[in-house]
Amino acid sequence: MHIEQKLNMTMLCDFYELTMGNGYFQAGFQDRMTYFDVFFRDVPDKGGFAICAGLDQLIDYILDLHFDEADIEYLRGRNLFSEEFLAYLKDFRFTGDIWAIPEGTPIFPQEPVVTVRAPAIQAQLIETFTLLAVNHQSLIATKANRIVRAAQGRTVLEFGSRRAQGTDGAITGARAAYIGGCAGTACTISDQLYGVPAGGTMAHAWVQMFDTQYEAFETYCKLYPHNATLLVDTYNTLKSGVPDAIRAFDAVLKPLGIKQCGIRLDSGDIAYLTRKARKMLDDAGWTECRISASNSLDEYIIRDLLIQGAQIDLFGVGERMITASSQPVFGGVYKLVAVEDGTGKVVPKIKVSENVDKITNPHFKKVYRIFDTATGKAEADYIAVWDEKIDETRSLELFDPRATWKRKTYTNYTAKPLQVPVFQGGKLVYKRPALQEIRAYCEEQVETLWDEVKRFENPHTYYVDLSQRLWDIKQGLLCQSE
Amino acid sequence: MHIEQKLNMTMLCDFYELTMGNGYFQAGFQDRMTYFDVFFRDVPDKGGFAICAGLDQLIDYILDLHFDEADIEYLRGRNLFSEEFLAYLKDFRFTGDIWAIPEGTPIFPQEPVVTVRAPAIQAQLIETFTLLAVNHQSLIATKANRIVRAAQGRTVLEFGSRRAQGTDGAITGARAAYIGGCAGTACTISDQLYGVPAGGTMAHAWVQMFDTQYEAFETYCKLYPHNATLLVDTYNTLKSGVPDAIRAFDAVLKPLGIKQCGIRLDSGDIAYLTRKARKMLDDAGWTECRISASNSLDEYIIRDLLIQGAQIDLFGVGERMITASSQPVFGGVYKLVAVEDGTGKVVPKIKVSENVDKITNPHFKKVYRIFDTATGKAEADYIAVWDEKIDETRSLELFDPRATWKRKTYTNYTAKPLQVPVFQGGKLVYKRPALQEIRAYCEEQVETLWDEVKRFENPHTYYVDLSQRLWDIKQGLLCQSE
Repeated sequence: MHIEQKLNMTMLCDFYELTMGNGYFQAGFQDRMTYFDVFFRDVPDKGGFAICAGLDQLIDYILDLHFDEADIEYLRGRNLFSEEFLAYLKDFRFTGDIWAIPEGTPIFPQEPVVTVRAPAIQAQLIETFTLLAVNHQSLIATKANRIVRAAQGRTVLEFGSRRAQGTDGAITGARAAYIGGCAGTACTISDQLYGVPAGGTMAHAWVQMFDTQYEAFETYCKLYPHNATLLVDTYNTLKSGVPDAIRAFDAVLKPLGIKQCGIRLDSGDIAYLTRKARKMLDDAGWTECRISASNSLDEYIIRDLLIQGAQIDLFGVGERMITASSQPVFGGVYKLVAVEDGTGKVVPKIKVSENVDKITNPHFKKVYRIFDTATGKAEADYIAVWDEKIDETRSLELFDPRATWKRKTYTNYTAKPLQVPVFQGGKLVYKRPALQEIRAYCEEQVETLWDEVKRFENPHTYYVDLSQRLWDIKQGLLCQSE
Repeated sequence: MHIEQKLNMTMLCDFYELTMGNGYFQAGFQDRMTYFDVFFRDVPDKGGFAICAGLDQLIDYILDLHFDEADIEYLRGRNLFSEEFLAYLKDFRFTGDIWAIPEGTPIFPQEPVVTVRAPAIQAQLIETFTLLAVNHQSLIATKANRIVRAAQGRTVLEFGSRRAQGTDGAITGARAAYIGGCAGTACTISDQLYGVPAGGTMAHAWVQMFDTQYEAFETYCKLYPHNATLLVDTYNTLKSGVPDAIRAFDAVLKPLGIKQCGIRLDSGDIAYLTRKARKMLDDAGWTECRISASNSLDEYIIRDLLIQGAQIDLFGVGERMITASSQPVFGGVYKLVAVEDGTGKVVPKIKVSENVDKITNPHFKKVYRIFDTATGKAEADYIAVWDEKIDETRSLELFDPRATWKRKTYTNYTAKPLQVPVFQGGKLVYKRPALQEIRAYCEEQVETLWDEVKRFENPHTYYVDLSQRLWDIKQGLLCQSE
């Protein structure tokens, strides 16, 4: 029996969500309407932007949110929770509102990626899972997008299941990699569940299982003449691997008139070996044979391989993508930004910190992306108080919130609200796009960024500015807190 | 609905396991008995040893291994698999043997952690999940063990769910962290499922929800007088956080005669702030108040904090443990090491490689740990052919397989076989220990290592040696392959 099959994810929460929940209940705060933002502070790998993902997981979770009898029994056994609170949990459902930036959108530090408006206990309880889903999926989508961009139009496949951090890391990790631009995965179940195209041909064991390498190749070509990608590095790539592959192609595929085939290398000096292999294949007339390479690839190694003239048509990227190994944490946080008072008025809240970077942007907010109408390029993001309006017929002056004298005026622009309503009063109001649409949307939106923002090293810092009114409110709260 | 609830993990396999499986079937190899080893090549973080874990997940997976009708339909839709193979999958079960090193054992590069003996298709199919389970759990157990050792006896809790790589990363990640020596987790569901003690008190939102910080603290102390750990850094740790905490302890706990309580810091200079806070608490008579610290901790930061005299009783470690962020990949591989011929004779197989480190140790093997009888310390691991016997009454000469002139003779020793039988003929024959037992076993086994092996930087390389017979067989195969 699988652990995951006997449980829902409601109990995947930090224990303090429950002690606080019980506390809010006891203190009479359970219906107090609160606003929480999910945002992040730094782009992984010092990149210029991240790719937002995880909303689909969040929606599944919210729809299923409930405490089973066994959950309540477990909690009762902890001797910390009041019977009234446990009774309240019996009928617990999410009744609040959620806005979110759609999956596949480039996102930047400090802006609200997800905003939750809900009674205190509910909003608090969903903190852990909301962060987990957004952090994990955004981490992998962001990393995959970097790797795909490094490959400059060549195919990138996700090959990392065996090194993923747990089953979900593999399964939904492949989904996130696809959003970020991978063409497919090796993970079969991700195809079955999400439609991420799964493929793959042979491991070294296949080659070792036969008396000779040639026999292994020939058998494979006969079995899968239209999908014959042969792994050529089990013994010696150039001495026997590529020659045996060519012999098998000649013997099996040529009589069938098949020209498309492939070889794969998983070790050795890929730049050198693929150049030599390309020449051998071309000389033998197999010009359409595609060369795949794997073995600890990431965006930096792919970039270097291409600079060195490696002849690679397809990259299989494993552990460094599925774990985002160069920086395996996406640091999204979940912070209280406002509460409603008895009259329904929204009262902004701030979290001060001795680390200045940890000070939050208070209030219920809306975030807009400012596109230059002439170029179609994204110029800046603009965070305003929720009820502020932008009149696109008038010019808009933006300023850097950390250097307020730096100002820029936009005249010919459109201001696109980034968040969309997802839940209203606990009801799902968002039409979930197909995964293929999310992937296409991501590619299209990344195109709206200037190349300077897309550099791997020292990218241009994209502007994420506050409206004057929001900035004033923040300053007011900061002065007050001292 | 949760994705995980509608599926078993059989389809969590690289697609090539299935194309190869179909190929073995078509080539008449499906009953050919094969031997595969799981082993790893490098200890993460350049450490001296790793901690083995993941067997429990592997057992669950093997017990449930089967293809549903929907799985077979999906495969049929791919138009790659023969109907005979799909029919074969209908009744597919694991019928082989598995040996494994028990969870919690210190393990070293190159030695077989798991050995599978099964018909080719079965052994191949379980590759992906077997690696995933062992790699993920060993990664986190190893990292947690480093962090726990850095804390020198102080309590370490796992706090990382929100930054975990997927749900399973959080849930079973907390389990692995517990094996490695953590005292508990923040992840509620890991307690419910595995008995990893879950705890936690308040987030910043709790403090912000009240009109004043003092009111938040007082309310919390009244609610949980026996579990009052107050988060003191929402506004200003020393100016208001610690003083308000002391006031609340004085007002609520003192009249109840309660002396045990706590404060927690999550930002700022932890070394400085905890020293100051300790003094303030002691001066106010709260000498039993425990100080908890979190905020991007790992073994290096904990070591430095303690060197600087930080006054910390409990470390909450989040993202850097749950993702093993300094090196988030455990590089276990799964390699064919032998096949049985028609007569049942075991024929060793080797995987050569242009990277010398990637050459495998062939054959069906047994691995022993050599303990010095006088000191009880582990001296070396010794890998022999499966049917070799060690006579402990006679001396044993070991040599370094990469420097065969380096030899050492042991006389007063015991040779403990590391692997235990887990499955025999598809039946589970292993009594799974309770998680608490695994954790205690881990602690005890780490004690058997010399301090030199336990250093964080430049540890002594523990010997993992081959028997003379195994070494000869390997050399023979290598010469043959050239």
